Amino acid sequence: MTTYGLLLFEAAEELDFVGPWEVFTSSAMIREQHNTAERPDTTVLIAERPGPVRCSKGMRVLPDRTFDDHPPLDVLLVPGGNGTRTQVSNPALVEWIGKTSAQAAWTTSVCTGSLLLHEAGPARGRRVATHHAFEGTLQAREDITVVRDARYVVDGQLVTSQGVSAGIDMALWLIGRLHGRDHARAVRRYIQYEPAPPYLSDEPSGRC
Amino acid sequence: MTTYGLLLFEAAEELDFVGPWEVFTSSAMIREQHNTAERPDTTVLIAERPGPVRCSKGMRVLPDRTFDDHPPLDVLLVPGGNGTRTQVSNPALVEWIGKTSAQAAWTTSVCTGSLLLHEAGPARGRRVATHHAFEGTLQAREDITVVRDARYVVDGQLVTSQGVSAGIDMALWLIGRLHGRDHARAVRRYIQYEPAPPYLSDEPSGRC
Repeated sequence: MTTYGLLLFEAAEELDFVGPWEVFTSSAMIREQHNTAERPDTTVLIAERPGPVRCSKGMRVLPDRTFDDHPPLDVLLVPGGNGTRTQVSNPALVEWIGKTSAQAAWTTSVCTGSLLLHEAGPARGRRVATHHAFEGTLQAREDITVVRDARYVVDGQLVTSQGVSAGIDMALWLIGRLHGRDHARAVRRYIQYEPAPPYLSDEPSGRC
Repeated sequence: MTTYGLLLFEAAEELDFVGPWEVFTSSAMIREQHNTAERPDTTVLIAERPGPVRCSKGMRVLPDRTFDDHPPLDVLLVPGGNGTRTQVSNPALVEWIGKTSAQAAWTTSVCTGSLLLHEAGPARGRRVATHHAFEGTLQAREDITVVRDARYVVDGQLVTSQGVSAGIDMALWLIGRLHGRDHARAVRRYIQYEPAPPYLSDEPSGRC
């Protein structure tokens, strides 16, 4: 049984946590179908307080648990988003990240979530990835090595990813590390993650 | 000004609508920053009733508007997920899709959302994409041509995509069609959509 806890806060970026959420919960579903988990994996959204959280782009999401009431986590995920600018000065949140990270097997972040991991301690002295537009700012905080041009960075039990959509790749890597590469490929097939970004070349598109 | 309406229903798949949500809202943000929209673009989640909706993998999301109270849409997006099996027999939802699609400039679906577009009418007689595991079932409904092995399929003003994560590619294509290819690339850069799925080869991973 693996327990994933995804931090939620005001103005967290939607895809930062929903991408990994989809990977973790699909992994749980497939493991349950194949009876490869002794008890079902659990994925929970954890916020400081109960009640709806308004995300960075306006989506309102309900957390499942609060800082004071959640199961022990195997994996902590910290998303980014505009809200990190405020939350980096929220002692309750920063303290919770530090404490929870110390008890979790894996600590992860997406996008500017790495700022919160630096403030809280887990990213101090470590190699990390972050959103491309934030690399200079994070590096300027010192006692951290920002790795540019890597989609996600693994440093011991700390795994950090680039911006927004990069959390999907990182989460797939992590479930492969936890439950095997074949399993990770099965999850990738289920969420049909065979990306085909448009406009990589600039061809005029005819009327369709 | 472009108005995007994303349908929400019980057991809709999380990433099916949050992927496009992130693309549409990021597009709106960038257009506002560049003053390229006369009025800000709007993205709304629309459900049959107000109150939290429990998605396919358990995330609880609040809709912004209801079937009886939403702005006219330029783009309708219908997600997939387990809930489509129930919703295909929900006359209120099917009727709303038919009516709303007829008034929208673009009708789109992700994953098994194509089932609802077939039931409601917009996908009848058209070329569509759907989740790889659902292609045979959808084709068996007849009066539809399921295109296999295309990430998304454009047929006139109908755009349908493969499973779950494919909505991101489709949404990027659509904002490029609406607001230009350079703009779509700017959005792609903002959400840092430079996918790097792991385990495409099967190499033993050392202890990290």
